[in-house]
Amino acid sequence: MNYKEKYSRLGKSLRSSLIRELLKYASIPNAISFGGGVPDPETFPRRELSQIAAEVIEKEYAYVLQYSTTEGDPELAKQMINLLERLYGFDNLNEDNIMFTTGSQQALELVGKIFLDEDSIAIVEDPFYLGAASAFRMRNAKFIPIPLEDDGMNVDLLEKRLHELDNKGLIPKVKFIYVIPNFHNPAGVTVSFEKRKKIIELAEKYDLLILEDDPYGLLRFEGEHIPSFFKLAERGRVVLLNTFSKILAPGLRIGAVLGDKEIIRKFVLAKQGTDLCSSALTQRIAARYLERYDLVQQIAPTIKLYKSKKDVMMKAFDEYFSKINGIKWINPHGGLFTWVTLPEGFDTMEMFEIAKKKLVFYIPGQAFTPDDRVSPSMRMSFCLPSHEKIIEGVKRLSEVIVEYGKSKGLI
Amino acid sequence: MNYKEKYSRLGKSLRSSLIRELLKYASIPNAISFGGGVPDPETFPRRELSQIAAEVIEKEYAYVLQYSTTEGDPELAKQMINLLERLYGFDNLNEDNIMFTTGSQQALELVGKIFLDEDSIAIVEDPFYLGAASAFRMRNAKFIPIPLEDDGMNVDLLEKRLHELDNKGLIPKVKFIYVIPNFHNPAGVTVSFEKRKKIIELAEKYDLLILEDDPYGLLRFEGEHIPSFFKLAERGRVVLLNTFSKILAPGLRIGAVLGDKEIIRKFVLAKQGTDLCSSALTQRIAARYLERYDLVQQIAPTIKLYKSKKDVMMKAFDEYFSKINGIKWINPHGGLFTWVTLPEGFDTMEMFEIAKKKLVFYIPGQAFTPDDRVSPSMRMSFCLPSHEKIIEGVKRLSEVIVEYGKSKGLI
Repeated sequence: MNYKEKYSRLGKSLRSSLIRELLKYASIPNAISFGGGVPDPETFPRRELSQIAAEVIEKEYAYVLQYSTTEGDPELAKQMINLLERLYGFDNLNEDNIMFTTGSQQALELVGKIFLDEDSIAIVEDPFYLGAASAFRMRNAKFIPIPLEDDGMNVDLLEKRLHELDNKGLIPKVKFIYVIPNFHNPAGVTVSFEKRKKIIELAEKYDLLILEDDPYGLLRFEGEHIPSFFKLAERGRVVLLNTFSKILAPGLRIGAVLGDKEIIRKFVLAKQGTDLCSSALTQRIAARYLERYDLVQQIAPTIKLYKSKKDVMMKAFDEYFSKINGIKWINPHGGLFTWVTLPEGFDTMEMFEIAKKKLVFYIPGQAFTPDDRVSPSMRMSFCLPSHEKIIEGVKRLSEVIVEYGKSKGLI
Repeated sequence: MNYKEKYSRLGKSLRSSLIRELLKYASIPNAISFGGGVPDPETFPRRELSQIAAEVIEKEYAYVLQYSTTEGDPELAKQMINLLERLYGFDNLNEDNIMFTTGSQQALELVGKIFLDEDSIAIVEDPFYLGAASAFRMRNAKFIPIPLEDDGMNVDLLEKRLHELDNKGLIPKVKFIYVIPNFHNPAGVTVSFEKRKKIIELAEKYDLLILEDDPYGLLRFEGEHIPSFFKLAERGRVVLLNTFSKILAPGLRIGAVLGDKEIIRKFVLAKQGTDLCSSALTQRIAARYLERYDLVQQIAPTIKLYKSKKDVMMKAFDEYFSKINGIKWINPHGGLFTWVTLPEGFDTMEMFEIAKKKLVFYIPGQAFTPDDRVSPSMRMSFCLPSHEKIIEGVKRLSEVIVEYGKSKGLI
């Protein structure tokens, strides 16, 4: 039968993500990939999780193998709230302020369902996290992109844009400001304390929600923790997305949404029709893990590992990239990514053809533009390759850049 | 802040399901509940699953604790295809014909995304499975309900409705016929072979997709297996939804979509933006379970248990219900549910107030009407209460019916 005539408008519009297509190359033998944003599997606490999994299935089978509530595991809620209180000084949180999801991606998708109509507007960072882009695009909303600087979005421009929207009477269409506060994916930057305050001030002025997506906050290598939007703003102003994917294991597929009781209730209703509930098994495994082990202590070696890899990459940049005129990169204070920007005229998507030949891979910045425009930037993840491969990969990439630059008369 | 003005139209429309509200009463001490549709946890193979979980986390940690592909675990695909080939004689299936989901509910939600626009039409059974209703309602589609008879939907009426839609030029808006072929939830009935053939004939005539949702097919107590729509129709005509929730454990949250390669690709694209991937851990646990154990042999005791409970309920109906004039019930050949219909004038939602007093619970038929109309029917599940409680519960319910009937002058 002819499916094409049966698809919905959304069904017709679905396209494979560029990242997925590019990641196929990463498995070529001898390739060095800075493309993927996945954790190093050697950092997963497999012995602890293996023992806990066996135990909870054996002893708590009536809970972990059964349907559970849409809200998620109350034991995990308790543990998560304890952790957030201890680490970040959050207070007045209880089970009504939290819902668990299938990773942060599901939370982003539910945000789309709950807030976005076709004529809605979302303020987003440029570059724009791809997962959020694909979730919000399914709702066909419009984006107002605000360029990222080294310390977060350009708040002057944000203020200007909001003022313009207000003049056009469009503020009621603006649903939220989407922000990744720490070690941005893909840009590697962290929003400064001053910019956090300014963004909150603007959100209050125009009565906008702040959607704070913080998968990497616990993976800080250096510098001081900056209080989150969720902590700084009045309760209710911020919906905070969190995940265990980068600090425990992505295979458990556990994300969390935190917010005002009323809004969490709305998330629960949206999740009911979406998948009824997430796995009670993986949630209870995480709950018992948090109960028995000090997560902060447990992830210390992971942070040390990622920091050493980041340092190796920065050193390799100094050695191989600094000779390229006009190149810039971010030295991230945590997380998984750095963002390299080549001089104007470079197109990292086009350059990818040369990278393929030299067997070194990155994600072209175009994948993260809200409007699919040509980009001179690229996302590079340092968490997966070994120290040696990082150095070798950066060397190869410098050759790619020079070859492409010369072929285009750019250097 | 005032969220109400921020919500999307969908966000505003979200309501809690009636079943969830009613199930709260089931936990009152001494209550007997026929409400829930959840399996008996004593049927879960906890020792086997516990051992497998420990093993796969220990040995396959780099896969099970990591992000996986959106398609799902290829090992589980292989096992599932083997099972379906062996049991149902499906052929020409490979990994491209299957995608795993977070339970069937996610598959239903993805169906909504892929096929339904606001002006789309879905042909549905009346009574209508609540999970499908809530998934499709999120897309705001229109329903054409076709009443269920003891052997499946009224196909004469289906033919008439399709003819009318065709006359109005509306057939292009009709996306699929949604059908639960075996041991219907809530109606307990099974679609006869003849009706399956007729529904396929009509789907071919008007070039409609058949969405076959079969969570209970393996739980047959008696009678002969009837070939599925997926087996009977040409490949591509049918999308088949399956789940491990009723035959292994719902806590794993594993559903499966089977269909033509092209359409499965579309499901994968829709799932990418929805939650990236389901848990590799729970899928690999299921894969190793299917590899090591004969599922059909493993679920034989479960089927025996449910059948004995069903028989006890039918016997109790004979004893306590048959004295009520005009009452009817379905003797299901498998699954979890029977459907009891009281004489005209009864309103099982209103009657619920008396049931609360007498501490016996069911799901009022109104929860399953496509148009929220008053219903004289109720869904009763026999899988969870003990034999003694089933008898006691039916006795209590007969008193509820008599009390309500007398108060309304109906008996």
